[in-house]
Amino acid sequence: MLKLYIGNKNYSSWSMRPWVMLKQANIPFEEVMVRFDSFDGNSKFKETMASVSPAGRVPVLVDDGFSVWDTLAIAEYAAEKFPDRQLWPQDAKARARARSVCAEMHSGFSALRGNCPMNIEASLPQAGGLAWRKPEVRADVQRIVAMWTELLETHKGPMLFGEFSIADAYFAPVCMRLKNYALPVPGHITDYVRRVCSLPGVKAWIDQALEEKTFVEFDEPYRTCR
Amino acid sequence: MLKLYIGNKNYSSWSMRPWVMLKQANIPFEEVMVRFDSFDGNSKFKETMASVSPAGRVPVLVDDGFSVWDTLAIAEYAAEKFPDRQLWPQDAKARARARSVCAEMHSGFSALRGNCPMNIEASLPQAGGLAWRKPEVRADVQRIVAMWTELLETHKGPMLFGEFSIADAYFAPVCMRLKNYALPVPGHITDYVRRVCSLPGVKAWIDQALEEKTFVEFDEPYRTCR
Ligand SMILES: N[C@@H](CCC(=O)N[C@@H](CS)C(=O)NCC(=O)O)C(=O)O
Ligand SMILES: N[C@@H](CCC(=O)N[C@@H](CS)C(=O)NCC(=O)O)C(=O)O
Repeated sequence: MLKLYIGNKNYSSWSMRPWVMLKQANIPFEEVMVRFDSFDGNSKFKETMASVSPAGRVPVLVDDGFSVWDTLAIAEYAAEKFPDRQLWPQDAKARARARSVCAEMHSGFSALRGNCPMNIEASLPQAGGLAWRKPEVRADVQRIVAMWTELLETHKGPMLFGEFSIADAYFAPVCMRLKNYALPVPGHITDYVRRVCSLPGVKAWIDQALEEKTFVEFDEPYRTCR
Repeated sequence: MLKLYIGNKNYSSWSMRPWVMLKQANIPFEEVMVRFDSFDGNSKFKETMASVSPAGRVPVLVDDGFSVWDTLAIAEYAAEKFPDRQLWPQDAKARARARSVCAEMHSGFSALRGNCPMNIEASLPQAGGLAWRKPEVRADVQRIVAMWTELLETHKGPMLFGEFSIADAYFAPVCMRLKNYALPVPGHITDYVRRVCSLPGVKAWIDQALEEKTFVEFDEPYRTCR
């Protein structure tokens, strides 16, 4: 059985992606949650993760003792291992496009990520308003809006490439941010966010995030408790 | 014919990766260099790139009018289009591992990247010495050393996964940094750096970088001219 190591569901945007992908594709896996205490070398989190992956971060997918780390590598591994689930779009060009936007997400959008860290349980419209004053945050959101608009038009929805694909899992944490920081986006984008939130895999993640009670200080620039 | 849009060879670490990969694999392509003037919205660079890719960055691979952007997506596209070149390792686990380390590079090592930006023509041992005092730079280099050591031992060299693969192209700019900033690494790592530098594809890139005369100020934190 596959094992997926993840961080706190409320905060760990990287963990959310492969978890949602596997759930939506009905691929069975065992979840191992390694709670964030701190990312210092001697923290319990880092100690545990060091024994699972040399990169020392979540998520990690372990297949029969073999570790695959980093979200994009996990996605490719699952896509190869379960070809019938069609995790990437089947058409070669659509697949290339899906990889372009996932890789763009993988290394980009640092202003949005830094100013609006994922926090599923929180409603943070004021922090969102402050973030929105920063041109680099607005530029990140504008790029997201342009990308999704183009893809939803080309593939006619409901998901970015028609049916659910890795790309939707990749942008699920961005949906959480747009929603919880109440960032101003056009109606068709809000509609897509709503559709993503009601995917069973995403809904399950959100429900479990809401049940968590841990307040992780270094992931909470805007609150002192929950 | 494939077209690859790249930035200045002396500075553009992202452009170097797919260029080296295509050259090493003997995949013919036409190179389009879009020189860095600035990354401001109204720069010539950004204007040109906006017409090639909505992400507005180099590298971009254009196949018969279809744009694939972002290094990792370009690598996957080429690997799919030219399966006989074996750009990824053939063994499924080795391939997963190669994707893990490339994805790790793709979103990580920001301390090394920020403090030691690629600058092929420059010799910057003093800047390297200063960078080395920063624990986060040392941590990045330590992770690189551990990763390469493990891979070179497992696959018995000469490249990270035995024969040349996308992973070596991915880490070629890191080789340039270790070398030019004279960062202290063990002998077997220096040996690997030397082997990478003498790959024909890497050598060609370096030679052409040395021929460039443009001094790009925003990529030169340590010099005022060349
Ligand atoms: N590029 C990595 C990023 C993973 C990542 O940064 N995960 C965070 C939690 S969301 C982590 O484990 N951080 C620990 C650390 O940075 O030491 C991936 O896609 O898996
Ligand atoms: N994740 C991207 C990064 C590309 C990137 O940042 N390229 C730089 C040049 S090395 C660039 O075009 N920068 C322009 C900008 O940031 O506006 C990739 O792998 O292709």
